[in-house]
Amino acid sequence: MQPILKIDLSTGATEEYRIPKKWEQEYLGGASLAARLLYGALSPALDPLSPAAPLLILTGPLSGTSGPAVGRFVVCGKSPATGLWAESNAGGFWGPELRKAGYDGLWITGKAAGPVYLHLADGRLVVREAAHLWGQDTYQIQESIKTEIGQRGARVLGIGPAGENGILFAGLFCDHGRAAGRTGLGAVMGAKNLKAIAVQGHGKIPLADPEKFAGLRSAANRALKNDSMTSVLHDLGSAGAADYFDYLGEMPKKYFSAGVLEGSEKITGASVAETILVGKKACHACVIACGRVVDLGDGEKRKGPEYETLVGFGPNLGITDTHVITRLGELCDRYGVDIISMSGTIGLAFRLFELGVISRDDTGGLALTWGNAAAAEQLVRQTVRREGFGELLALGSRALGRHFGAEDEAVQVNGLEAAYHDPRGASGMALVYATSPRGACHNQSDYFLTEIGQADGSLGMAFYDRHAGAEKAANVARHQDWRTVDNALVLCLFANVPPGTVLGLINAACGLDWTVDDMLRSGERAWNLKRAINNRLGLTRANDKLPKAFLEPLPDGGAAGYVIPFDEMLSAYYTARGWDPETGRPTKDKLLALGLDDVAADLWE
Amino acid sequence: MQPILKIDLSTGATEEYRIPKKWEQEYLGGASLAARLLYGALSPALDPLSPAAPLLILTGPLSGTSGPAVGRFVVCGKSPATGLWAESNAGGFWGPELRKAGYDGLWITGKAAGPVYLHLADGRLVVREAAHLWGQDTYQIQESIKTEIGQRGARVLGIGPAGENGILFAGLFCDHGRAAGRTGLGAVMGAKNLKAIAVQGHGKIPLADPEKFAGLRSAANRALKNDSMTSVLHDLGSAGAADYFDYLGEMPKKYFSAGVLEGSEKITGASVAETILVGKKACHACVIACGRVVDLGDGEKRKGPEYETLVGFGPNLGITDTHVITRLGELCDRYGVDIISMSGTIGLAFRLFELGVISRDDTGGLALTWGNAAAAEQLVRQTVRREGFGELLALGSRALGRHFGAEDEAVQVNGLEAAYHDPRGASGMALVYATSPRGACHNQSDYFLTEIGQADGSLGMAFYDRHAGAEKAANVARHQDWRTVDNALVLCLFANVPPGTVLGLINAACGLDWTVDDMLRSGERAWNLKRAINNRLGLTRANDKLPKAFLEPLPDGGAAGYVIPFDEMLSAYYTARGWDPETGRPTKDKLLALGLDDVAADLWE
Repeated sequence: MQPILKIDLSTGATEEYRIPKKWEQEYLGGASLAARLLYGALSPALDPLSPAAPLLILTGPLSGTSGPAVGRFVVCGKSPATGLWAESNAGGFWGPELRKAGYDGLWITGKAAGPVYLHLADGRLVVREAAHLWGQDTYQIQESIKTEIGQRGARVLGIGPAGENGILFAGLFCDHGRAAGRTGLGAVMGAKNLKAIAVQGHGKIPLADPEKFAGLRSAANRALKNDSMTSVLHDLGSAGAADYFDYLGEMPKKYFSAGVLEGSEKITGASVAETILVGKKACHACVIACGRVVDLGDGEKRKGPEYETLVGFGPNLGITDTHVITRLGELCDRYGVDIISMSGTIGLAFRLFELGVISRDDTGGLALTWGNAAAAEQLVRQTVRREGFGELLALGSRALGRHFGAEDEAVQVNGLEAAYHDPRGASGMALVYATSPRGACHNQSDYFLTEIGQADGSLGMAFYDRHAGAEKAANVARHQDWRTVDNALVLCLFANVPPGTVLGLINAACGLDWTVDDMLRSGERAWNLKRAINNRLGLTRANDKLPKAFLEPLPDGGAAGYVIPFDEMLSAYYTARGWDPETGRPTKDKLLALGLDDVAADLWE
Repeated sequence: MQPILKIDLSTGATEEYRIPKKWEQEYLGGASLAARLLYGALSPALDPLSPAAPLLILTGPLSGTSGPAVGRFVVCGKSPATGLWAESNAGGFWGPELRKAGYDGLWITGKAAGPVYLHLADGRLVVREAAHLWGQDTYQIQESIKTEIGQRGARVLGIGPAGENGILFAGLFCDHGRAAGRTGLGAVMGAKNLKAIAVQGHGKIPLADPEKFAGLRSAANRALKNDSMTSVLHDLGSAGAADYFDYLGEMPKKYFSAGVLEGSEKITGASVAETILVGKKACHACVIACGRVVDLGDGEKRKGPEYETLVGFGPNLGITDTHVITRLGELCDRYGVDIISMSGTIGLAFRLFELGVISRDDTGGLALTWGNAAAAEQLVRQTVRREGFGELLALGSRALGRHFGAEDEAVQVNGLEAAYHDPRGASGMALVYATSPRGACHNQSDYFLTEIGQADGSLGMAFYDRHAGAEKAANVARHQDWRTVDNALVLCLFANVPPGTVLGLINAACGLDWTVDDMLRSGERAWNLKRAINNRLGLTRANDKLPKAFLEPLPDGGAAGYVIPFDEMLSAYYTARGWDPETGRPTKDKLLALGLDDVAADLWE
């Protein structure tokens, strides 16, 4: 791998950091390698918004190669929202450009004296003043910075007003609306007075065996193009199966309190495609092109809503108008907030209003009734600006609920709002949400797809009904390990590439001779390492829990009446993982078996 | 294989026919073997409704084994609708029961003096009087016959009033609504005065290597259960992807004249599942269970509509009410007519009414306006009874169009109405419809699924855009060969089982040592044999054509403006097939290469 560029914004000092070969091979790259690099730096006392907090941006061994679907990079650190391990990856073109600029990562610490942005071009770093850019949204900075540096081909990653204002679910955004949205790392970046990072380069992406890789990636791209999931994602976008999720009772409505909603059939990729779609957009070298380009009738080409946006600002709030949803999604992208956490926090506010916990007296006069899109828009604006009721929303749903004595109404785990895949419709997601290192997240394992048959046969996972219980715990763990590998590479989870193919690409890119088991073991190692980081930050078994809503049955819809046997599932999961049921830590034996000797010593001695 | 029971209904004579080993191995079973057995018997002079016409019902080497999805049997002969090769297969439980009764097929000729039905129990055949059953629908005979023979476990295959009345698209029906619907073989059965065939048995399904087979089929069933297409079919039925087809402009509306229709979003498996679905139904040993059970609010459990029913009696007629569509589908199942041909013929009548070619004077006062479900129901009843305007509809759409000087408005090929997959949305279907041995059929190749990525990787087919042209001709031919193998086995096309897995099952079931190429060659051989049968029945290259509607662009929807480059595609197809462009026959070289020496002599000497 290429070196990582360390930058101390307080002093301006830079340093080329070479990753130890052993770690490169054990963790591959991305979030896994980041966990290894940051393990020692993330202490309970560290304030994520302080200068000392690290912001580590990494690519992986497949990032920026020519496929399949490997244009991603990841941002890691300590989350200001959860106080735990933070990671969030994004697509687009920024990551590949960073590698072409000569570095596989940026490790940023310190805090600039005033607003700055970085410009890295072919190995040369310039820190530039950014006071005039402060306040610009994430779309505006694309134009402003490219114009200012005179390089249209540069790629810009930055924060919007949300990151500047320390909103706890602010993200980093590149291109137009490509987001590393989750866990609040945009606030970390803002706290460093860092507005953006422009990168540009002409170097070659390093590969151990370029010839072998070329053959494999061609075959992988062809197979991927041929795949039926790819077809649906290409034609209908990430919401291509939304009607199916709706049917399964897996698509949340009215903040997870309802199973059916009049008009929800309009919340599908097909409906978007038939009404407002005017184009498709791909990340770097991706044959899928799940990105949507839509026209709402004003002739302007906008980013179309993804599944999480469609549901989060749609049925979650009782809204079924795709025009309104598109606009709310764009507002979040421009302001630079995570759409899941923003819509989830607004969802809680709506729900508390319905329950009578809050009233117009609390909301500054807004009636938070289901379907009230104008109120939702007001809340987004107020949150980003920390105005009025928005001051509470800016802290996320856990804090919002706690403020009104209703923390258990908040649908979140450890401070991260749940994604829009209700585990009552696909029970494996219960374990995924409860045990993910970053809270109620669907990107550490998109097990909901496995539940509808999108299984990776070669992982040797048996198939269990979406309402099966503890018997699927080992499957979930295995799937998490597999997705941890993807998040190390950094390979898009939408790329339905068989494990054997991924293995071939890893071996050719990294000069390894791994088996599928070696690969999964690398995932398992990183999973346990992230767990240990969280254990050291105070996480115990008591944190592996679900919000109240998920433990109650839905009244109607495709999952009506089903109650998740969560306790048995979690016990089985601990067994499958080799975790200690008392403390919630990986056992010493497990850590030693994974070669995590230093971690075993830290946790158990 | 077990013997075939030959039955001459004119004399009552029966004979056990042993299939020559060579043919068994070259054709496997099902429709392929039937083509070989009937090749000599199907002459141009043969009237399909005469006593001399054969009705050959065959199973295949996988029929009735324990998976995956191999409960099917096929009915073959000469089609009264097309005058060409006829085949139509059905699922349910009848085929497996026939094999358990000791025979792998029934070869029926002659004509009984009066209405009869057959009862075959463990090798013993009884011909029973059926005058009292004449007029009963296909659901009623299930009950009547099981009661009469005192065997609830018997399986009954029979015809309804449509078959009795010689409707040219009457089918054979078993269980409840499991149909061998296409090509009018129900009329052939009716012309023999044969109302039904009840079978029952306790024998073992023969397998060359039962142990090897058991292991393979377990793995195949597990993999199939795990498959994402299976999940959708299980949860949402055969219309699970209808909204996607709608989006692609591949779902016909207003008899193929419109690309969009208000309310078409209700025509989906998800919509059915969310509104009327109360259960699911599987054929013999099938893990998919695509069959729907619905309740329309009257507490009765009915067969729910499949994709072709939903579209044929739905958007095809401008109808979007799933209750109405369900009832129309049930009516056809009970009467015993093929739903595609019935709804297609009604569609033509609606279209001619819109165009002003026909008026209320022709329809007996019915206003055939889009969405008029009551009129559609009237036409079904009139057709089956051959009353009024129904007398014309009973002959199918080609004859109906011809009667009014508008044959080119009929969306059919060689007399068979097109299935509801518009080739303008998926161009490979243009070749499929034009070259299928039985007319505009989607079951000799469901290439529309390949167009959206449901490819069989191991067949080595490149992926082409759904609007690509001649370059996909060789793919289509290869896919037809593959599906011909499936139709020989008889394996359900919904079972997304990889070719390599199917190969293993064939080898274990038949004691063969084939490669995938051997298997595809068997398909190619049967495809060419069926072509030769049709050539001998008068078919030339001039028959390989599309109806006018398919050659004109759609005005709107997901395929708007696209024009199929049909002539180039057909030429490329001929090249891929090794067919003579002058005569439309397989070349002598091709026939000899496939070991069809006798056919080569017949066609070319």
